[in-house]
Amino acid sequence: LLDRTGSVLAERRSSEGMQSARTLGFANVLERTLSELGAPHDLPVIICGMAGARQGWVEAPYANVPCKLDDIFSNSVSVPGIERMVRIVPGLAQRREEAADVMRGEETQLAGAASSLSAGRNIVCMPGTHSKWAAMEDGTVTGFTTWMTGELFDVFAKHTILIHSIGEAVKCASAAGAGFLRGVQLGLEGTAGVTSQAFGIRAATLLHDLASEEAACRLSGLLIGVEIAGARRRYDPDLDRVTLVASGALHTLYSAALNEAGFSVTEIDADQAVRAGLIQAARVNGMLPESA
Amino acid sequence: LLDRTGSVLAERRSSEGMQSARTLGFANVLERTLSELGAPHDLPVIICGMAGARQGWVEAPYANVPCKLDDIFSNSVSVPGIERMVRIVPGLAQRREEAADVMRGEETQLAGAASSLSAGRNIVCMPGTHSKWAAMEDGTVTGFTTWMTGELFDVFAKHTILIHSIGEAVKCASAAGAGFLRGVQLGLEGTAGVTSQAFGIRAATLLHDLASEEAACRLSGLLIGVEIAGARRRYDPDLDRVTLVASGALHTLYSAALNEAGFSVTEIDADQAVRAGLIQAARVNGMLPESA
Repeated sequence: LLDRTGSVLAERRSSEGMQSARTLGFANVLERTLSELGAPHDLPVIICGMAGARQGWVEAPYANVPCKLDDIFSNSVSVPGIERMVRIVPGLAQRREEAADVMRGEETQLAGAASSLSAGRNIVCMPGTHSKWAAMEDGTVTGFTTWMTGELFDVFAKHTILIHSIGEAVKCASAAGAGFLRGVQLGLEGTAGVTSQAFGIRAATLLHDLASEEAACRLSGLLIGVEIAGARRRYDPDLDRVTLVASGALHTLYSAALNEAGFSVTEIDADQAVRAGLIQAARVNGMLPESA
Repeated sequence: LLDRTGSVLAERRSSEGMQSARTLGFANVLERTLSELGAPHDLPVIICGMAGARQGWVEAPYANVPCKLDDIFSNSVSVPGIERMVRIVPGLAQRREEAADVMRGEETQLAGAASSLSAGRNIVCMPGTHSKWAAMEDGTVTGFTTWMTGELFDVFAKHTILIHSIGEAVKCASAAGAGFLRGVQLGLEGTAGVTSQAFGIRAATLLHDLASEEAACRLSGLLIGVEIAGARRRYDPDLDRVTLVASGALHTLYSAALNEAGFSVTEIDADQAVRAGLIQAARVNGMLPESA
């Protein structure tokens, strides 16, 4: 719940994802949350993320890159059949067959981060379940690439033989230990590739008694190192400047990894960025005066 | 059940892995199987694979590379406390910290394939849940590397967002279709890396209506292409000769992928190779005359 300057009046988070919201009904989840926040019943609502997916609430068809940020927001879709004014922001698609990619939600983070970017070309890294690296040029998203880093950490730890090295519940709690930076170095070097290097963590447990916490950190560092090396191959082998949009543990891990890789990093809080982006989307959609 | 020349008298396969055998009792599983095969109660038994793991039946400690094949077999361990003579072949370990790796079972395939190798250095590819590429030099295993290719295919298809593109049951049925070879090319090129390219399959479903069968083939090709590119970085950038030890669908897929990558391939049937290796292990362990 934000006032018209973008200041937070109240906040509520829940772990209900697209599947839960489909079961419970998107409108029910929204109205329950708004009532818990004490929001007036005629307050307009702007939404980004998976609610706009084909299997979400109301499909907000992707805007295509290259795309100006304001043009994304002006294509927001209205949710029909309810009293409240609710609009959902489109995601972004990159349709080139050899680099097909999609995002939903990160376009709004990008918009929130845009005012902090320097003139000309900027590369923005948004870590998460599906990490996105986007190329921005003066308010236009020119392209982006996804790495499944966060999802693959969970999947390796829970559903592969690495469960015997890491275990379901163990996360990397510190970027400072040897395990994490060693993993980053392995990912940056890349030699045999991540589908081989991940097995090396299992072998290190068997042969060198690698502890589960260190194994978790090495896997985390490996996947992030692989992402950074891939981004350099994708954008520029000499890439060494990036804007990192992240919060909490991801912020700590990515800062350390980017530093290890020799990057100069501009840091933007992910929660602030998404709120700033939503405020801008609300303005473009006439929910707020153009200048607050 | 083999005669002393290595010819198959009878065969039985079951899907009972290490966990089932631990629960049922390794001796019970073995004796039930032997009785179904009509094997005499004093027939000696030679075993390779996970039965020798620490969590298996009786630990057969790893032999370390570099290692002559016969030296592996002469370190087989006896199963104590049962009437029958049962020996378990050790696995192989590569202890160097920066390339820690282990195998159990493939050392026996390697021994079975060794007589078909040319003099000097050979690279042998043994695809599977955990694919192994081994360097052999005149009967000595000098080193090896694992790729989690088979396990990761299943895990991507069942436990990541790719479940919506592929689905649990779909496998790549043909190496001939566009999907598989396109995947191989993507894996060989590598640009953004496999943790990004796998997401491209999801995006291709959303943006270009990629069918689930073709998505499965593209993922399969991608992971195999990544393995081949990694093996080249690991062993020799110009590597273009390999001995492929494989059967069935894996044989078809790897042949096609290696061909696409410009390899000249010598093919050995994996089932025949493991039987030939077990016969050799039986000889080294005094279960058969040294020359049949």
